[in-house]
Amino acid sequence: MTKFVYFFGANKTEGTGKMKELLGGKGAGLAEMTSLGIPVPAGFTITTEVCTYFNENKNTYPTTLEDEVSKVLKLLEEAMGTKFGDASNPLLLSVRSGARVSMPGMMDTVLNLGLNDETVEGLAKKTGNPRFAYDSYRRFIQMFSDVVLDVDHAHFEKILENKKASKNIHLDTDLTSDDLKDIVVQYKEAVKKALGKDFPSDPKHQLWESITAVFRSWNTRRAVDYRKINQIPDNWGTAVNVQAMVFGNMGNDCATGVAFTRDPSTGEKKFFGEYLVNAQGEDVVAGIRTPLPMSDGSESLEKIMPPAYKTLLEIQDLLERHYKDMQDIEFTIQNNKVWMLQTRSGKRTGTAAVRIAVEMVKEGILTQKEAVMRVSPSHLDQILHPTLDPKAKKEVLAKGLPASPGAAVGRVVFSADEAQEWAERGEKVILVRQETSPEDIHGMHAAEGVLTARGGMTSHAAVVARGMGKCCVSGCGDILIDHEKELFRVGEHTIKKGEWLTLDGTLGEVLDGKVPTVQPELTGDFGEFMKWVDQYRRLKVRTNADTPHDSKIARQFGAEGIGLCRTEHMFFEPDRIDAVREMILANNRSEREKALTKILPMQKGDFKSIFREMKGFPVTIRLLDPPLHEFLPHTDEEIKELAKKIGVSHEKLKAKTDSLHEMNPMLGHRGCRLGITFPEIYQMQVRAIMEAACELAKDEDFKIIPEIMIPLVGHVNELKRMRDDTEQVCKQVIEEKKCSIEYLIGTMIELPRAALTADQIGKQADFFSFGTNDLTQTTFGFSRDDAGKFLPFYVDKGILPCDPFTSLDQDGVGALVKMGFEKGRSVKEKLKVGICGEHGGDPASIEFCHKTGLDYVSCSPYRVPIARLAAAQATLKQNA
Amino acid sequence: MTKFVYFFGANKTEGTGKMKELLGGKGAGLAEMTSLGIPVPAGFTITTEVCTYFNENKNTYPTTLEDEVSKVLKLLEEAMGTKFGDASNPLLLSVRSGARVSMPGMMDTVLNLGLNDETVEGLAKKTGNPRFAYDSYRRFIQMFSDVVLDVDHAHFEKILENKKASKNIHLDTDLTSDDLKDIVVQYKEAVKKALGKDFPSDPKHQLWESITAVFRSWNTRRAVDYRKINQIPDNWGTAVNVQAMVFGNMGNDCATGVAFTRDPSTGEKKFFGEYLVNAQGEDVVAGIRTPLPMSDGSESLEKIMPPAYKTLLEIQDLLERHYKDMQDIEFTIQNNKVWMLQTRSGKRTGTAAVRIAVEMVKEGILTQKEAVMRVSPSHLDQILHPTLDPKAKKEVLAKGLPASPGAAVGRVVFSADEAQEWAERGEKVILVRQETSPEDIHGMHAAEGVLTARGGMTSHAAVVARGMGKCCVSGCGDILIDHEKELFRVGEHTIKKGEWLTLDGTLGEVLDGKVPTVQPELTGDFGEFMKWVDQYRRLKVRTNADTPHDSKIARQFGAEGIGLCRTEHMFFEPDRIDAVREMILANNRSEREKALTKILPMQKGDFKSIFREMKGFPVTIRLLDPPLHEFLPHTDEEIKELAKKIGVSHEKLKAKTDSLHEMNPMLGHRGCRLGITFPEIYQMQVRAIMEAACELAKDEDFKIIPEIMIPLVGHVNELKRMRDDTEQVCKQVIEEKKCSIEYLIGTMIELPRAALTADQIGKQADFFSFGTNDLTQTTFGFSRDDAGKFLPFYVDKGILPCDPFTSLDQDGVGALVKMGFEKGRSVKEKLKVGICGEHGGDPASIEFCHKTGLDYVSCSPYRVPIARLAAAQATLKQNA
Repeated sequence: MTKFVYFFGANKTEGTGKMKELLGGKGAGLAEMTSLGIPVPAGFTITTEVCTYFNENKNTYPTTLEDEVSKVLKLLEEAMGTKFGDASNPLLLSVRSGARVSMPGMMDTVLNLGLNDETVEGLAKKTGNPRFAYDSYRRFIQMFSDVVLDVDHAHFEKILENKKASKNIHLDTDLTSDDLKDIVVQYKEAVKKALGKDFPSDPKHQLWESITAVFRSWNTRRAVDYRKINQIPDNWGTAVNVQAMVFGNMGNDCATGVAFTRDPSTGEKKFFGEYLVNAQGEDVVAGIRTPLPMSDGSESLEKIMPPAYKTLLEIQDLLERHYKDMQDIEFTIQNNKVWMLQTRSGKRTGTAAVRIAVEMVKEGILTQKEAVMRVSPSHLDQILHPTLDPKAKKEVLAKGLPASPGAAVGRVVFSADEAQEWAERGEKVILVRQETSPEDIHGMHAAEGVLTARGGMTSHAAVVARGMGKCCVSGCGDILIDHEKELFRVGEHTIKKGEWLTLDGTLGEVLDGKVPTVQPELTGDFGEFMKWVDQYRRLKVRTNADTPHDSKIARQFGAEGIGLCRTEHMFFEPDRIDAVREMILANNRSEREKALTKILPMQKGDFKSIFREMKGFPVTIRLLDPPLHEFLPHTDEEIKELAKKIGVSHEKLKAKTDSLHEMNPMLGHRGCRLGITFPEIYQMQVRAIMEAACELAKDEDFKIIPEIMIPLVGHVNELKRMRDDTEQVCKQVIEEKKCSIEYLIGTMIELPRAALTADQIGKQADFFSFGTNDLTQTTFGFSRDDAGKFLPFYVDKGILPCDPFTSLDQDGVGALVKMGFEKGRSVKEKLKVGICGEHGGDPASIEFCHKTGLDYVSCSPYRVPIARLAAAQATLKQNA
Repeated sequence: MTKFVYFFGANKTEGTGKMKELLGGKGAGLAEMTSLGIPVPAGFTITTEVCTYFNENKNTYPTTLEDEVSKVLKLLEEAMGTKFGDASNPLLLSVRSGARVSMPGMMDTVLNLGLNDETVEGLAKKTGNPRFAYDSYRRFIQMFSDVVLDVDHAHFEKILENKKASKNIHLDTDLTSDDLKDIVVQYKEAVKKALGKDFPSDPKHQLWESITAVFRSWNTRRAVDYRKINQIPDNWGTAVNVQAMVFGNMGNDCATGVAFTRDPSTGEKKFFGEYLVNAQGEDVVAGIRTPLPMSDGSESLEKIMPPAYKTLLEIQDLLERHYKDMQDIEFTIQNNKVWMLQTRSGKRTGTAAVRIAVEMVKEGILTQKEAVMRVSPSHLDQILHPTLDPKAKKEVLAKGLPASPGAAVGRVVFSADEAQEWAERGEKVILVRQETSPEDIHGMHAAEGVLTARGGMTSHAAVVARGMGKCCVSGCGDILIDHEKELFRVGEHTIKKGEWLTLDGTLGEVLDGKVPTVQPELTGDFGEFMKWVDQYRRLKVRTNADTPHDSKIARQFGAEGIGLCRTEHMFFEPDRIDAVREMILANNRSEREKALTKILPMQKGDFKSIFREMKGFPVTIRLLDPPLHEFLPHTDEEIKELAKKIGVSHEKLKAKTDSLHEMNPMLGHRGCRLGITFPEIYQMQVRAIMEAACELAKDEDFKIIPEIMIPLVGHVNELKRMRDDTEQVCKQVIEEKKCSIEYLIGTMIELPRAALTADQIGKQADFFSFGTNDLTQTTFGFSRDDAGKFLPFYVDKGILPCDPFTSLDQDGVGALVKMGFEKGRSVKEKLKVGICGEHGGDPASIEFCHKTGLDYVSCSPYRVPIARLAAAQATLKQNA
């Protein structure tokens, strides 16, 4: 016979902390604490199997359940020395849900269960506190009616308000026990009026109705949606925990509080928390009275109730050592006796997470491996960027996408030029744009943070800001920019140029005014922790860097090479854009070559500096990728200006820009399609790379192996042709410079067709780099520039589990990555394979890359430590 | 020991017609004719294996080859009664290439080989025709020098020209034998001057040099490119045919000619051809003298050389019965003796192909199955469209893409409205546009043909024109349209509005003026032939039709249902576009629903008519697919006009159209993404479909099963959501109308992700329809609107074997189709699967669909017969 109910109490505990699947997280925790000899109000857990049975059998229970519950109820009465439904010495119960993983606020709870007109009197007598007894009764009726009987909350609110108004008082606490008695009467009348029958007075009946209500709450709309979004299977079910009530509000020898075993902000080893004398748990949260500190100061628990404090100190130490992690605990002190209601792993800041992990190793609580698993990648993300002061008041104006983490405060400007001017005269600015383009880079550099109205997680603004480690909120559709009037509107609110604005790039929030921020600080703990991390990972971590500056930062963060150097970002520098435009507007090959000759030395210089920063680490350079029209002006105004500057007629320039216009530039004339139709462009770039490498090789003592990457290959013949061209130039340069440089020629795998035919393409490639941004676009048919119109809705409604531009879609895009990897390796055993899409910095995607067998991931400089950690965790998880 | 040389001659023939791989097409044909007892100048074939050896062994030969050639040369001398290199009775040879498949003009030929200063005299004496002998000698030196010695052609041209100038004559034929003798002397001097050595006089040496030159020509640039483009493996190699020369130019008892065993234009059973007395083969082609007919008239071969004619008549009959196909033959009559030089299957018009196939069955030459294989899909294409009169003079102005076959003649107009106006007053017009959009449909209807400057084989113009069976040349980048001046330019040429223009949609040519056309005529033969076709195919053939008119045409062509009915094409009708725009511009759901209510009855009416035309055949209706901005005006002018019309401010309308603008609309807010974000649109469409079906079911006696198709599904959750919505509306309507209609709900598979996860999606679908247009776009990352900038170059250079929008890319897109099909069927055995991209009308793609196992293909009405034939041929090929 299946056992459906597990008891926990001082003398007997049937469950253990390992039984989370059967007892849920809460139930397992209560059983575990009880087993450790920690004082926990006795109770029992009805298993998740009952929930499954209930759902599959038209909301009925296994036949043996009632009997099992009766038996444990007896055990419970014995343990607590009270009796359920007894008029003089009543046992009161709480009924709570508890799934395998926490689903905060999603399911129902009933407290103070077991009260009726008789037991309430017994409670009043026993406690000598009728006010307490009737207040509990009132709360019970209200909660039970709401959760179980589905009677509208508003009825009760109104009765309470009327009572207070009639007595001219404002706080619930000013109500007397007589007031509360009267309210109870009115509450019961309200229930009868709403349902046509009396409020149930039989405690057993109350209990079963509550259990059923909790099980039923597993399938409420919000719980179902929550599970869909968080990918929690529907068939896991919830357990139900029935537990004896204890009270922190029965007098001045009572208290309630929450505490952490270490400081969750700094990680300092210190018992840290807050409590209230003569109060219930919800009072601490409600903020009506100001909670007091656990230790320190004359009003601390340490001073006020020394024995209870001592007990708590022992318990928290025991729990932390037992769980090998910082704990977040809830306790109640009833008549000087300590009762533990909950223990769970405590949430902490990034700084605290690293410090706790490092110190716990030193204290002998954790091994280094365990410590590596205890810090999450998002903790590191916090450490690397400024954050909003958690204590500060915030007024959220609008929400966009959390495009690049961190916080930024500055005065609003609407153009890149202005951002630069203001910054030069010492102002902090936030650059607000409809969307950014490569022409805005100098403004982004100058700004503290960037806010765009359009564009997704891999829009230009998002990618560039992440690369700069700069805070960015993108795709904030709520803001309406009026460029003419130099302001933007959010609903009724108007923000003018020069006004202060704060961005939270981690949450995607736009905040009014100046919100104080906290600057990150990389401590010695961080360095030590990262050393441990690097012991365990198999994946190499490279960076996406286009400039010597970015390369330097990435090296400081531990990047082991460059996985993606986008040559075109260099084209926008003010001193070279003219030559680039001259090249694009050339009428024939010889004019084009003339312009390219001007660009060659500049590109060579860039490559030299990057090779120097990378000191022998591999550098993958992608040849020109974007369509040429990206480098030309777009508005009529700008075209006129350029026409004047370069001395051609406005008509001719307009005709040229028109002829380059594309309906779907993402699927247009770009990548190797440019290299094939204008071979001289790629030839110039290859020459610049190889000349840089050869010239540098003579002066430096590290080895330089350029990896030349051909973008947007879809058919093996494209790569074959480009490879032939590239090799020819490489050989020429090597001969001219009389040096012996090794080089690799490889390709991006960023089109479905490339992955599907990777066995053909692999024969022509020395390496593959998965460009998962573009691959996601084509696999889903989503333009990252346009998906803002439906993608947030998709994620919100659980149609997609997450934004596939943020975390790799493993079923679809991932299937292509796997296929491409396996097909490539099937023809070339030593094919070097990496990933250089934005997913290279996303922990879940990194784990996927690890499992698939890739050699490296590449991500923006500020995500390098995160990628290192995620790579180590992926290895440890796999080996666990 | 491998045999490398195969002899053919009256007494001994070593090869057969089946040995094409070893002997090449020409060699196998010559052996076969010889075996049949047909007079063929004796000769031998050096096998393709020698070519492979030659290429793999640094241009050397197998050691045994020379000996083998010596032996067959003796046989050859015996057979011809002449001797190679003999001064009095010389044997002259031709050396020709001959690969497995014909590669016309790609490789080298040497004629009249064996002549030198002695043998030429022998030839002159033997024939009594010194002029003939020296002309042959001159031609030999010229040809050998060009092909073997690589001496510039121009030297010889100049000598010849000077000679003619000095004698003041214009034609080569006016040169005397003395003139030619002198030319020979000068030719040899020129060779000596160019090479520093004498022209080789040893016939053996001449022979081996020529053989080597032919083998070497397998690897010339043009031959390699040709093979790449035509996907002929490099390792097939060519054979070399060495054959005794015969001469049609030795006197008036000599002749040469080409003929067909049936009339290649009409298919009539009649020996049909041309000949010239006392001439060489090249004279017939050169057009200096007018060739004479084979029979009919006083100068016919029948009248002039009755015995030779009789022999030819017997031979052609024998060949046709032997090869079971109409033959294209070449013959030479030397001193009244008939020699056959070539026989091959003859090219023919579509009309002729069908007539020949049908009549050959009736004559007992072919079985019905064989007849079905003898007509190519492109033959049917010709029959279904007007064609240019092959005899007409053509001046090609420009070349574009052959977007929709047929020919059209009309006066140029530049707008759809004008096309309609002009057509209404009885003018024939050609609509010339930069590109077309759905707003141009009425103009396309009115025009004879459509010419666009932009857009590929699946651009709007191409797809719509094919649907209408109307001639279209698209993506003709050479034409520069000046809308203001109402003209277009092609190079120096200007075509103004109202001027006549001719289009050849089959070749993609734009022709100046009025070129006469030939109207197609569907004969009884066609009907009979198509009946045979339908016996053999497994694939069903449906049509892509959006209107009752198209549906009717498709039914007449034998369509077995509609595979794709694009509901949005109906939205552009002038009487409903206003309601559609009102729907798009609605500020909220209720306004949108109000507008949708206006559209509902119109859509319902359309569906009713289409169901009626289809009389019980299945009809797949795709819900709204394009992004909403496609229905709004684009230019400022048009926006102003619309604003006035619908009474909103210009600013508001502009803001709305701006907000709908997309960077990459192909990857944007369209397909089911619209259905999900604006569910009321799809709900209206489903209601219209179901109401139409229910109402019609009451009056008609055929069964209606609507197949409702959700477009652009990438994730199973999208389909699940849309399926729920759709089912709800279907059930509602069925209840309201109190009828019992079955319906299917399925999806397009047109995104890589849909194919990759088809096992998930298949569970939610009753059918799949592969949308290979979009699937090709995303798999390759090619926008069909923009690919014109590089795709023609790709095809031209052999980077891609063909335009993947025309013929399915089997390695890439095909891999996804196969995967989607197999994954879909793996979860639903009876899943109905078809294809509705443009590839559904392409024979190679249809064969792929057959092999993959699909249930049906769907194509534009005018391609239905072609698809039926291709489907039958695919089955027959597979079973062969």
